Amino acid sequence: MSSSEDCIGWAARDASGHLSPYKFNRRSVGDDDVYVKITHCGVCYADIIWTRNKFGDSKYPVVPGHEIAGIVTKVGSNVKRFNVGDHVGVGTYVNSCRDCEYCEDGQEHQCIKGAVYTYNRVDSDAAPLLCAGITVYSPMIRHKMNQQPGKSLGVIGLGGLGHMAVKFGKAFGLNVTVFSTSISKKDEALNLLGADNFVISSDQEQMKGLTKTLDFIIDTASGDHPFDPYLALLKTFGILVVVGAASEIKFSPRSLFFGLRSISGSAVGGTKDIQEMINLCAEKEIYPKIEVIPIDYANEAIERVIKSDVKYRFVIDIENSLK
Amino acid sequence: MSSSEDCIGWAARDASGHLSPYKFNRRSVGDDDVYVKITHCGVCYADIIWTRNKFGDSKYPVVPGHEIAGIVTKVGSNVKRFNVGDHVGVGTYVNSCRDCEYCEDGQEHQCIKGAVYTYNRVDSDAAPLLCAGITVYSPMIRHKMNQQPGKSLGVIGLGGLGHMAVKFGKAFGLNVTVFSTSISKKDEALNLLGADNFVISSDQEQMKGLTKTLDFIIDTASGDHPFDPYLALLKTFGILVVVGAASEIKFSPRSLFFGLRSISGSAVGGTKDIQEMINLCAEKEIYPKIEVIPIDYANEAIERVIKSDVKYRFVIDIENSLK
Repeated sequence: MSSSEDCIGWAARDASGHLSPYKFNRRSVGDDDVYVKITHCGVCYADIIWTRNKFGDSKYPVVPGHEIAGIVTKVGSNVKRFNVGDHVGVGTYVNSCRDCEYCEDGQEHQCIKGAVYTYNRVDSDAAPLLCAGITVYSPMIRHKMNQQPGKSLGVIGLGGLGHMAVKFGKAFGLNVTVFSTSISKKDEALNLLGADNFVISSDQEQMKGLTKTLDFIIDTASGDHPFDPYLALLKTFGILVVVGAASEIKFSPRSLFFGLRSISGSAVGGTKDIQEMINLCAEKEIYPKIEVIPIDYANEAIERVIKSDVKYRFVIDIENSLK
Repeated sequence: MSSSEDCIGWAARDASGHLSPYKFNRRSVGDDDVYVKITHCGVCYADIIWTRNKFGDSKYPVVPGHEIAGIVTKVGSNVKRFNVGDHVGVGTYVNSCRDCEYCEDGQEHQCIKGAVYTYNRVDSDAAPLLCAGITVYSPMIRHKMNQQPGKSLGVIGLGGLGHMAVKFGKAFGLNVTVFSTSISKKDEALNLLGADNFVISSDQEQMKGLTKTLDFIIDTASGDHPFDPYLALLKTFGILVVVGAASEIKFSPRSLFFGLRSISGSAVGGTKDIQEMINLCAEKEIYPKIEVIPIDYANEAIERVIKSDVKYRFVIDIENSLK
């Protein structure tokens, strides 16, 4: 395949993570490919992880971004499901073997041969639903939270992932309690997002009052925090799903085995789940709440994401600002 | 209720955990009570936890022991299911409210009002199946390991709990891999207990060769150990069940969310599960492998349990040695 396209992105060159314009070539559009003109891109905490090499596996230069919305401008000759002019989205992965047991089961992100991720991968291209949304939606479906209205869900952290978990939770008829370190988010959590309860996680009395009251917890916090106080809030057989990026998970075995509780991990989701989520969001008008920014605000946006100073997701207006 | 019975046990008086003879009174047999003459009692790692106040909640004097076999010698007027002369067992709890959702569901050990435990509790009375056996059997049933022959199970630690997990695993048709720190257990694991594979957990090459090959892991290790190397062995959606008494569980979130894995906790089980397990063991001749000891060997037995120097459970011959 020849490389015939001149592309422009903003890349980090080293672990400082500083982003600046970067030109690169992409291969030509193949028979099975779809070429997408990117119009918008969300800013996710994972962008910080890989631009700053937090997991030690970054391949510089890294062009971050994996919540991508755009318009199809070319399609390969074998492509049947997409046409030029279609509005499409790209999440955290762009390919997989499509042949293993997980790909066949619609869990392409768990592909045995390894999915090709949208960033920090060789042969890689790559809007908030496509990472933040699916990352909370997928485990909610897996643990059947959409089939048990009236059950209680705790959501730790009210950022890009957390605010979508609240929205999905309410759409599923759950009683939703938000745990946050910041009182400033209380009003929006209750009145804008529709949460039933808001708890400052450092308030030990409030926390204690919720002992053994929750069926599920989705932990979206990206910073390090204790797990035992949250596990204590789960009823018997309760499940805590970790989708945040704490550097370590640490707790007492007693927090698990005295309540037969589980901790489960999840990251993004398969294409089947993604399509179902998009359909649900369209039908029920569940939209992420975003702040639209130009590309040259990217570095400042990253700093604000680190400080949890965003309601609730930055989305870069690529079309109008990346030239 | 008057206290009319003179009882004798061996108790720890303080956190040294040293056991010595101890006389105490028990209330009279009530209308709903069964009086059991104890003939045998297993020695469990939990006996070390509470006699040595490892969890900080011991109420001295503590008479440990919660794997109890004996013979019914008196029954209250309301008792219908037990008769004098019956051979019976008592596990880790002796009462619960019998009215809450968990009691109604046969999960009395999760009783909302708190089950009355056999030891270290006020109003508390008390053989290996009743703690070690049920502690591994119950999560195996909960995670449907008895319905998926051909799947693969890892068992960490080959003590009282671990050797029963191997036996149940083989009875359920699973492919069982034992992880141990001691090569001395290899021959028995493979040839006596019937495990399919034996791995020294410090052998990094052997461990790496098993990456993403196991459906389930039951972790019975009582000492502290890393979790990430074991989580890496689980397939996508794999489950690690912690039933051991490590002081802390600590791992990277990536170990969970890149494979959508779960860690679940469990301890003992409900009466329904216990009866089913006993029936299965009787039918399939699944017996714990034990070393019978007299009561005055209890302190030495405790030291040997700490050193994992027992195959695989000490059982005290109460009838013939406690006078």
